[in-house]
Amino acid sequence: MRVVELIQRKREGGVLADDEIRTLIADYTAGSVPDYQMAAMAMAVFFRGLDGAETAAWTDAMLRSGSVLDLSAIARPKIDKHSTGGVGDKVSICLAPLVAACGVAVPMVSGRGLGHTGGTLDKLEAIPGFRTDLDTKTFIATVDRVGLCLIGQTADIAPADGRLYALRDVTATVESIPLIAASIMSKKLAEGIDGLVLDVKVGSGAFMKDRARARALALAMIEIGRRAGKRVAAHLTAMDRPLGVDVGNASETAEAIEVLHGGGPADLVEITVELGATMLLLARVAPDRAAARAAIRGAIASGAGLERLRACVAAQGGDPAVCDRPRVVLARAPHVAAFSAAQAGFVASMDVEAIGRAGMRLGAGRARKEDAVDPAVGLRILKKLGDRVEAGEPLAEIGWREEARLTAAREALAGAWRIAGERVAPEPLLLEQLGDQ
Amino acid sequence: MRVVELIQRKREGGVLADDEIRTLIADYTAGSVPDYQMAAMAMAVFFRGLDGAETAAWTDAMLRSGSVLDLSAIARPKIDKHSTGGVGDKVSICLAPLVAACGVAVPMVSGRGLGHTGGTLDKLEAIPGFRTDLDTKTFIATVDRVGLCLIGQTADIAPADGRLYALRDVTATVESIPLIAASIMSKKLAEGIDGLVLDVKVGSGAFMKDRARARALALAMIEIGRRAGKRVAAHLTAMDRPLGVDVGNASETAEAIEVLHGGGPADLVEITVELGATMLLLARVAPDRAAARAAIRGAIASGAGLERLRACVAAQGGDPAVCDRPRVVLARAPHVAAFSAAQAGFVASMDVEAIGRAGMRLGAGRARKEDAVDPAVGLRILKKLGDRVEAGEPLAEIGWREEARLTAAREALAGAWRIAGERVAPEPLLLEQLGDQ
Repeated sequence: MRVVELIQRKREGGVLADDEIRTLIADYTAGSVPDYQMAAMAMAVFFRGLDGAETAAWTDAMLRSGSVLDLSAIARPKIDKHSTGGVGDKVSICLAPLVAACGVAVPMVSGRGLGHTGGTLDKLEAIPGFRTDLDTKTFIATVDRVGLCLIGQTADIAPADGRLYALRDVTATVESIPLIAASIMSKKLAEGIDGLVLDVKVGSGAFMKDRARARALALAMIEIGRRAGKRVAAHLTAMDRPLGVDVGNASETAEAIEVLHGGGPADLVEITVELGATMLLLARVAPDRAAARAAIRGAIASGAGLERLRACVAAQGGDPAVCDRPRVVLARAPHVAAFSAAQAGFVASMDVEAIGRAGMRLGAGRARKEDAVDPAVGLRILKKLGDRVEAGEPLAEIGWREEARLTAAREALAGAWRIAGERVAPEPLLLEQLGDQ
Repeated sequence: MRVVELIQRKREGGVLADDEIRTLIADYTAGSVPDYQMAAMAMAVFFRGLDGAETAAWTDAMLRSGSVLDLSAIARPKIDKHSTGGVGDKVSICLAPLVAACGVAVPMVSGRGLGHTGGTLDKLEAIPGFRTDLDTKTFIATVDRVGLCLIGQTADIAPADGRLYALRDVTATVESIPLIAASIMSKKLAEGIDGLVLDVKVGSGAFMKDRARARALALAMIEIGRRAGKRVAAHLTAMDRPLGVDVGNASETAEAIEVLHGGGPADLVEITVELGATMLLLARVAPDRAAARAAIRGAIASGAGLERLRACVAAQGGDPAVCDRPRVVLARAPHVAAFSAAQAGFVASMDVEAIGRAGMRLGAGRARKEDAVDPAVGLRILKKLGDRVEAGEPLAEIGWREEARLTAAREALAGAWRIAGERVAPEPLLLEQLGDQ
């Protein structure tokens, strides 16, 4: 196989065969295909795309560059959730225990925050003692015993994806839907799951700013899953507003725990119930969506979800007291400041990426992978789309530690809320559902 | 400057500024921009193109990666010719001395053959003792004293182009018109010339198979030249047939010398006179095209062109006797075989690339850059477009040395002549003229 001929064929809009893609990815991982050929291929793919079979082969080849978890010892159906990332997205922390409480195993491998979006690992690590670097054996045993376990990616999961993503990042080839889909799915399929629900965020705080591209990404991932024999569903959800009230590591974990107590903001509860219901349907443990929603709500009301999280925290070395008094056990920002509206009116739109960037500047997120995060700092979003605001009324509360970071966060927030004279009703949070049920 | 942002802008169809291109090429040459970023950029350029200003800046940056010859000591106008390459193209060897005989300095830096096309250096080196590796000082002195000198590219000419071309070759990014134009022109402008005539070949034996792309390439090169303050003209010429009769190193040199004796095939004479006339017009040493043609024809008739070649051969260490008895002095193939027509009719079309490949297989050309060439072997093309052929009549004579190579050459030739019942008149050799006059 001559790689230059594969690049040329893709450049001309041709199709690569399964075995050509497998060899390409395997040789790239082994180092015998150099970065410059893969960079040219990635750019050709950016312009020409990959069809369903090519994308599936690409995903499978990256998946097979590492090892696939063997969860066959776990009898229950194994279902995970993946979010494409947004601001205030702490859903995994309340969702996984609720789904586990309904009899589904949730083996969840999560990521860290980068740029304006947060990461589940950073939020969980706000819990004193909580470890996300468990070995594979402990991970599997915990999923089996507790029903859920939340860890970080190991070096053994899809190493080809790690190498290729780093290359795409410096060659302006990240924004290719089949390559994004293959990257996500290669890691998720390596978890050895039976099914997956995808939360594809759309809007100013999401990677996909427009709905057509979000839908295309969702469909690409669903097709990869189907070709791999997995049940996959996707929800397109609104990220033209932050999710919930809290944006920050400790405070988001606290907010998610409040959902398990029957509290928490309505939008966070709504998305948790809906994604949870879909996971129960994919797991075939509920007969229909109404019953599935009722089961998730029941796991909140009974406290069964909270008990699953308590067992998970204990199993992962964290302080279980966080489940009872999250706002006391978790770190809080030493200072609080208001960010107030300059004029009266209604919130017409939000620059959610700017809000996420403000959180990053406070220290809640990372500009570069090697940065550390401060669990205590963050924002409370007091006004969202459609809300009435008076001049001088706080739009957000800023929990800060360093004055220079507060100033930088305020700069990011300037203009993040657009206030208009007339109220415009926001779009629903749950925009669209695709794939298996 | 962040290179990834430049790649992204080009990927989105944006325009790069002069200084951005200059820094990109300079940093690439210095090694601080890695191959993988340049490969992604080249693929983005393949899809999005470069505009006239970008192409000129790209060319100039590659030119400035090396040194530019200083020919200011030569008072006469300095004009060169460049051909995009074909089969049987030995024009430089008779053209340069004729133009020199008309009072123009011809500083010609040529290349070697690769693939199905031959190279002027290989043809000249068939002359016993002829050296093409002169140093810059000797080159300039020879152009000044003799009127012409023909050498190979030095490491000092546009090294960025050498590095980038090698990268494009393995990343399927060769076929980009602005990158081809920039590659050719960066080397030609490094010669320190006043003007340039381009022979852009079109057809089955050319790099550009269709006329629209050949025209686009010619116009891109003309614009680069204009922006560099040079006079540039282009002829689109037919390469749907080999040029002349001989295809091979020694035999092509002999055929070119025969033109200087007033002989040679009509097509070779026609193109030599026309390109030579254009060079005289670019040099402003002839008042109009008719006078320019007459001057070139006069330099043939008077023997002045032959005397210029004799002086050049002597200056470059070759045996001047080649000018008097080329077919005796130059090597000949030890064996000759016929390649005959299977059926009677008229030559309707020729696969000229296959004919070139047959020559390469005989040993006259290179499959890889590091291969050696055999000056003695080659083909004589006896039937060309529109010619009447009887069944069993030779279409070509094959001058061969090794039986295995003869067999391989015959395989390449199979089907290279398409014979039809009706005669179709071939297109003219000189298809179109563009640029300055």
